[in-house]
This record gives sequence, C-alpha cells and structure tokens, in this order.
Amino acid sequence: MNLPECKNLLLNLDSGVLHVTFNRPESRNAMTPELLAEIASVFESIRESAVRAVVLRGAGGHFCAGADLKGMMAGGMKPPAPGEADPIVAMNRSFGVMLRQVSAAPQVVIAVCEGAVLGGGFGLACVSDIAFAHAEAKFGMPETTRGLPPAQIAPFVVERIGLTQARRLCLTGAQFRGAEALRLGLVHESFSDEEELQAKLKDALSQVVNCAPQANALTKQILLNVGKLDMDAVLDDAARKFASCVRGPEAPEGIAAFMQKRAPKWAQN
Amino acid sequence: MNLPECKNLLLNLDSGVLHVTFNRPESRNAMTPELLAEIASVFESIRESAVRAVVLRGAGGHFCAGADLKGMMAGGMKPPAPGEADPIVAMNRSFGVMLRQVSAAPQVVIAVCEGAVLGGGFGLACVSDIAFAHAEAKFGMPETTRGLPPAQIAPFVVERIGLTQARRLCLTGAQFRGAEALRLGLVHESFSDEEELQAKLKDALSQVVNCAPQANALTKQILLNVGKLDMDAVLDDAARKFASCVRGPEAPEGIAAFMQKRAPKWAQN
Amino acid sequence: MNLPECKNLLLNLDSGVLHVTFNRPESRNAMTPELLAEIASVFESIRESAVRAVVLRGAGGHFCAGADLKGMMAGGMKPPAPGEADPIVAMNRSFGVMLRQVSAAPQVVIAVCEGAVLGGGFGLACVSDIAFAHAEAKFGMPETTRGLPPAQIAPFVVERIGLTQARRLCLTGAQFRGAEALRLGLVHESFSDEEELQAKLKDALSQVVNCAPQANALTKQILLNVGKLDMDAVLDDAARKFASCVRGPEAPEGIAAFMQKRAPKWAQN
Repeated sequence: MNLPECKNLLLNLDSGVLHVTFNRPESRNAMTPELLAEIASVFESIRESAVRAVVLRGAGGHFCAGADLKGMMAGGMKPPAPGEADPIVAMNRSFGVMLRQVSAAPQVVIAVCEGAVLGGGFGLACVSDIAFAHAEAKFGMPETTRGLPPAQIAPFVVERIGLTQARRLCLTGAQFRGAEALRLGLVHESFSDEEELQAKLKDALSQVVNCAPQANALTKQILLNVGKLDMDAVLDDAARKFASCVRGPEAPEGIAAFMQKRAPKWAQN
Repeated sequence: MNLPECKNLLLNLDSGVLHVTFNRPESRNAMTPELLAEIASVFESIRESAVRAVVLRGAGGHFCAGADLKGMMAGGMKPPAPGEADPIVAMNRSFGVMLRQVSAAPQVVIAVCEGAVLGGGFGLACVSDIAFAHAEAKFGMPETTRGLPPAQIAPFVVERIGLTQARRLCLTGAQFRGAEALRLGLVHESFSDEEELQAKLKDALSQVVNCAPQANALTKQILLNVGKLDMDAVLDDAARKFASCVRGPEAPEGIAAFMQKRAPKWAQN
Repeated sequence: MNLPECKNLLLNLDSGVLHVTFNRPESRNAMTPELLAEIASVFESIRESAVRAVVLRGAGGHFCAGADLKGMMAGGMKPPAPGEADPIVAMNRSFGVMLRQVSAAPQVVIAVCEGAVLGGGFGLACVSDIAFAHAEAKFGMPETTRGLPPAQIAPFVVERIGLTQARRLCLTGAQFRGAEALRLGLVHESFSDEEELQAKLKDALSQVVNCAPQANALTKQILLNVGKLDMDAVLDDAARKFASCVRGPEAPEGIAAFMQKRAPKWAQN
C-alpha cells in the first residue's frame, strides 16, 4: 500500500489504524476541491490494504465547517458555454461520490466530531460507521440560509437519522450541540474531553480489531444493500457471502478460537 | 394568489405565513370529504405563491380526531354496481393523495398537535416538516379496533417513525401522550401551554424565514426522493438543483450576505 | 388447525394466544436447522387459523444464543462437488426465509427477550411486532468476531433500528443490555422481573384482542409493503384493503360497537 502525498491531510498509520486529520485549521477545515480529492485518494489507496479502521478528525479543534464558499465564489459561477457540461454540477456531484466511497469503505470509519460539524462536515459524519461527538460540538446545515440546497448532504442525512429529523434540520438551518446529536442518533457516543475520547476510541478500536477483516468488509456490503436491492436479493447475496467466509480462512480460525477460548489471529497484534 | 373559500377551515395569512385552522370543533375536527378537499385546495392555491410556511392547527383544542365515521356510515357502504368503480376505494385513496400533497408542499409545514391527534389527524402530523406536541395531546391509530386498517395513514407512519414503532402502534391501537410522541421522533418538540408554544413557533418561523425560499423548496424535493429513486439518481438530480441555485438570484445574495455579516433579502420583512 | 409435533419447541395455546417456547436450554436455545424448521412449521400451521397472537420465549432464562456453531462445524464445511448447489448457502438462506415468514405472520408476534439475545436470536427479536426486554438481557451480534458475517440477520437489523446503529453493532460485535435495546428502539418496553413482564404482556394482549383480526392482518401487509413497492402502489393496494374491510363483517361490527360504546365481538372471550 502506498499512501498518497497530501497537502491538506495529515496521515498517521498505527497498528492497522489510519488516522486522517483534515489540516486546514485556518478555515476550520472548510472543504476545498483539493481536500475532497485527497480524501478520495486516501480511501482508494487503502481499499485492498490491511488497514482495519480509519479515524477522521480535524486539526485545530474543528471537524469541518463545510464547503469553502469563498473559493467557490472565486472559482466563478458563470454559466457553461453552450454544449459544455456544467462545472458546478460536476463539482457538487463529486462530493456525493466521495461520501458514498467513504460510506462503502471496507474499513470501519470512525468520525471524531468536535467544534464545527457543518454542511459538508455534517455529511461526512453521516457516513461514518462510528461517530463520537464532543458535547459542545456544533452541528448544522446552514446551506439554505445562504441560498443553496445541501444537495449532496441531505440524502445521507435521511439515511442517517431518517426523513423526520432531516426535513426539520435542512429546512430551518438549525444548529445543535453534541448531546442533541446523540439523541437524534447522528452519533453513537459523546465525550467531554480528550481523555474520555481517547478511552472511547481505544475501546472501539479494540472491538473492531477483534472482528475479522473480510467478514466485516462483507457485512458492510450487506448492510449498504438494504433498501437498494429487493430484500430477497439482499439475502441471497448475503448467503453466498456467508458461505465464502465459512470456506475462507476466517471462519475456521474464528470458530476454533471461540471454542478454545482464545483470541483469533486477526486480533493479535 | 387567491385563497379558496372554505367552510371547514379558517385561513389567516400573516407575513408570509399561512395559518390554517381546522374548524369543526363540534366533532373534534373529524375529517370529512369536504374538509379534506378544502385542505387540498388550499395547498394547491399556494403552490406557486410567496407563502413561506403553513401552520396547521385545530379549533377548540383538538388537532383532528380522525375520519368522520358517522358520515362514512351515512354515506352508505353498499358495494358498487357491476362495472362501477368502488367509491369507498376512491374516497379512502384521496386521503393519501392529500397527505402526499401536504408532505411535498414547497412551504415548510408546521403541525400544532393538541388534544386528539388520532387516525387521519395522526397521519397529517406525520407529513409535517416540524411538529409540536402538547404534553397532554393524545396520539393513536384506533382504526383496527373498529375493524378498519389505517390504510392511507400507516405508510406515512412508517416513513415518520420507522417500521418498528409503526407496527406496534398500528396493531395494538395504543394511545400515548405528547412526551412519548417526542421520544418516538414523531414530533420535534413538546410544549406545556400556549405561551411556550408561541415562543417555539416564533423561533421556528424566524429560522424558516432566514432560509431561501427556492433553496428550501428544492431541498424538500431532494429529501423526498431518497428511497424512492436510486441513490445516484437522487444525487445527480440534487447536483443540478444545486447549480440552478448557484446561478439563480438566491445563492449570490445569500453568500454575499454571509460574507458581509448581514441578513439576506428574503429574511427582511 | 393442527399444530405440528415439535421436539425443540413447547407449544401452549391459550385463548387465541399461542405461546412458543424454544426448548434447548442446555445450549441457551442455540438455533439448529431442526429448531428453525419447527418454527417455520408452526407459523405455517397457524396461518389461516384463529390464533391472534404468538408469544416467543426461551426456556431456561435465555431467548436464543444464536446459531449452533458446533453443529454447523460437525455438519461439515466441505465445498460442494462441481455442479452441486452449495448446502451452506441453502442452510444460511433458510434462516432469512424463516425471519421473513415470522415478520409477515398475520398474527401479532411478541418477543420476550431475556438472557442471551445473540446472533440469530437478535434477528428473531428484530422481526417481532412487540418486543419486551429484560433490563439485564444481553444483546449483540458476535458473528464477525468469529469470522462470519451476520448475513441473514443484518438486513433485518437495518429495518429494525436503521443503518446508523446497525453498522456500528455489526462491525464491532458490541454487546449491550435491555435498557440500551430500548433506547435504540430495538424493543418497545423493558421489564425487571416476571411479575412486571406478565403485567405488560397482559396489557399488550388485551390491546391486541381488541383489534379486529382481519384488519390487523391486512395492516401488517400494508406496513411491510412500504419501501418495497412504490408509495402510490402501497396506497392503491391499501385503499382496496380498506374497502374490503368496510364491506366485510369487521368494520360494520366495529363501528357499531364504537357508536354503542360496547366491545366488538372479536374482543369478547
């Protein structure tokens, strides 16, 4: 595996866990096309790797304050020439492509939500497998207050917390704290300080490492098929995946370890 | 915009907010075909208007006690003549048509749930963008205790609070209060008295007015596409809507107002 | 109605309620192909019967600890001969078939979750109409810690509690107690002891008996169509079901009983 060179991300690989830090603290890690491309590139590079989990976090106390509107304005909003594809459509759409890529990563993706978790940052939190929120983190989608729909974000918010909460949040621009994010089911746990976060991260990562890598990756595929394929098709595919694990190396080792009351090989560092 | 003449509704337009009051307090605003037709007609009349939000409420302390069963009985339950379409099917189906219309209204729809929120009234609460419940409001779907399925309501309950809670509520006829409605995610906030309601309504409406009308309307369309179209189709459509806003009047005004730390034009009354 | 002879289930029919007890306490009611086939057979036998509700419970203080891995190992994991269908695929798939059958049963299905509610037992809890959890019950999907995906279970967990919670639980093997199951919306109520359980069961069953059997069965069909058919198709079908009830025996009796402030016939034992 070769991790890409990144200007906007700090990468730190430690015992099978890749720590990805958004590193534009001067703009609260606002998302530029370059930052977005780097995230996509990192996830592409680890797709077939031994990386088991990815921890997403922002430098400087903020997760991500959303899209870089100044940059977008500067980039020009002129309509495309006749016959030309619309660059704004393509730019916006690429954000949704990246979110689906992160959502479908074979690794377990953990989001550490602190400070600003707005707009695109909110969307990114919504595609994580495990999300932790600082009690004082500030969540919201301010897009429509600025005349824009949260176009590539809103669909993932519906998948995350359901239509009922999504419609209120999207149509009011309401902002809320980490405790409310927990109540809404947007995140799985909240924390008050770095010590508590590190303890919870450590617990989560030790649980993840205890799960077989291939079985976890196939399980994510099954989960993401629900509602997209017919239920019988989801279950047919899942049965074939189950059989492939039974006959692969993981299930015999996992079941033997369980019977022998020892840790399976993949859990031994 | 010409609001229709209504016998069963009180209409009051105030600063871009249309207050719609169900006005059949003698029957706890039980839903008749006429009341239903008037609701449909009001939402049709404001579709292309400058109305930003609709507040639905019942006169006399009740939201809506459901369908008017006495009227339905009196209307006759005789089977249709051979070759005739079944009038009961058509009558029932029209309720679902109205619910989808209210759900998809370009305005933000706010439901004030007090007293009886039963059957059809329950369904109407389920298609609002923002719902407030009085702590003592009484929610439930008593249909099957009367030998009828909550046919046009149940699907919107699944969309609102998920299959797990919907199946229990529909199959037991259980009734519950506003606090439980909040816990189930059926409503967004609860209130104890008129003063608290007015304060919360005012907050919500000021948030809504701060959001760009066209961006909000397009966002609702995006939200309602999720689960109905393939995810890539949802996101492709959303990117086109995003670009149309970038090049429309709203985004340039909204972004400029944000940069200049002033309220956008649509927020100024 | 002829209930099947069962070796792994205790069956007790009482006033229209069928109590089904998983009876392999020596293995915490771990699911074998035989136990699974008996469950399927029992639900098949009551499909057209007067049974109104089914209560699922485990003998010996455990609901069900999941699949019988020892049995599966003993059964052999050899790959199928060329041209032969894969028996592991078929065996796994049959669990999903049974879960869909239980989910779609015309009766109201009640799960009493105590002790181990793991893997397949977790899946079974997820297809009940009403679930009660002992505060100390232990829920979880340990499959991937053993190298296997929770293949036929995970899709029902997504339907039950949504993708957000499902992905965390499936990918960490996390175990949790009844109180958390209630918070996640996996179960509807929790209980602390047998007395409290019996009181809650009695309440639920008296509510169910008050609902018309055919109306309830049709309502379940409507609920389970949501997200599987187009929304207009769901509502069209529901309107026809409504009309059939209006003209069937149940609605006239139910509405008359309501007007006369008496219990409908189906509620009288």
